[in-house]
Amino acid sequence: MKAYIKKDFPPSNVRRFLEPGPIVLVSSAWKGEQNIMTLGWHMIMEFTPSLIGCYIWDENYSYKMIKESKECVINVPTVEIASTVVKIGNCSGAEVNKFEKFKLTALPGKKVSAPLIKECFANFECKLADASLISKYNLFVLEVVKAHVAISPKFPKTLHYRGDGLFMIAGPTVKKYRKLFKPDYL
Amino acid sequence: MKAYIKKDFPPSNVRRFLEPGPIVLVSSAWKGEQNIMTLGWHMIMEFTPSLIGCYIWDENYSYKMIKESKECVINVPTVEIASTVVKIGNCSGAEVNKFEKFKLTALPGKKVSAPLIKECFANFECKLADASLISKYNLFVLEVVKAHVAISPKFPKTLHYRGDGLFMIAGPTVKKYRKLFKPDYL
Repeated sequence: MKAYIKKDFPPSNVRRFLEPGPIVLVSSAWKGEQNIMTLGWHMIMEFTPSLIGCYIWDENYSYKMIKESKECVINVPTVEIASTVVKIGNCSGAEVNKFEKFKLTALPGKKVSAPLIKECFANFECKLADASLISKYNLFVLEVVKAHVAISPKFPKTLHYRGDGLFMIAGPTVKKYRKLFKPDYL
Repeated sequence: MKAYIKKDFPPSNVRRFLEPGPIVLVSSAWKGEQNIMTLGWHMIMEFTPSLIGCYIWDENYSYKMIKESKECVINVPTVEIASTVVKIGNCSGAEVNKFEKFKLTALPGKKVSAPLIKECFANFECKLADASLISKYNLFVLEVVKAHVAISPKFPKTLHYRGDGLFMIAGPTVKKYRKLFKPDYL
């Protein structure tokens, strides 16, 4: 697998990678266990603090791990590991150690105990900022407290799920509409 | 502009078009006025009822219109009208009638008073399902009560915003990973 060289990235600008709507891998750690889940239901909720809303189904094994540890890492995978992304979503952490099974490398976080997935393009270390919407909506309001992004490529070929087993692969990034924006609206 | 022929679509499956993360146009009506805003911060929150979370900034002119009318339409534009999408985001409904200014066609909804934008690929009529998160998070929990989707193309070239004036244009939709899914996990 590709080895990304990453650098620190401002948490307030993670929208650059999440707002386009990619499937992400959420990694967590709790009581000596590590786990990974595939997630498509997320949104940016604020620039500063850098808030991300994530829908985590209460039947997911990660649900309790993230709720109890109050931490996780949002990892952005690319098309090179698409098969692994699907397979991660098809099995449960209750039965397998996904890092071992899928030969993924768990790197230590700087600000959270949850592991970063080395083979992903970007890693956003998150702390649970608001647990009050979990019971009603399975909605975890997370704050990105540290972000790591690959220095290349500039625009990753992310996976965007359409349901029914179909992925849209990120197409070209275009700059030609930039001149139409008012500077304050970029 | 392209004239789409649309048909009814199951609200419980709008994730097919929203989960990939496109920029959408949200149209609304209130006290004789109609308006449109550009929105990138949204997420699927439930299949049935079909819930969508939308972050609508309280300084947007649409904020009050949607909050008071308790309705809106989420319209999915494609790359053909990208310039219009940007321009809609660069002006305020307080100053201009955006349907007139951008020569867009307002079609009546079946279940809401907010207008559908004819020139968009898909139109999702929404009612405000939960107003309780608006004051804290500008988060509108909407229920899609009626959906209209173009019969062609099957996979639209949607716009995905990266910030800084850059759009990612939807790339190819691939089926080759479908065989890796467990049937219940599609």
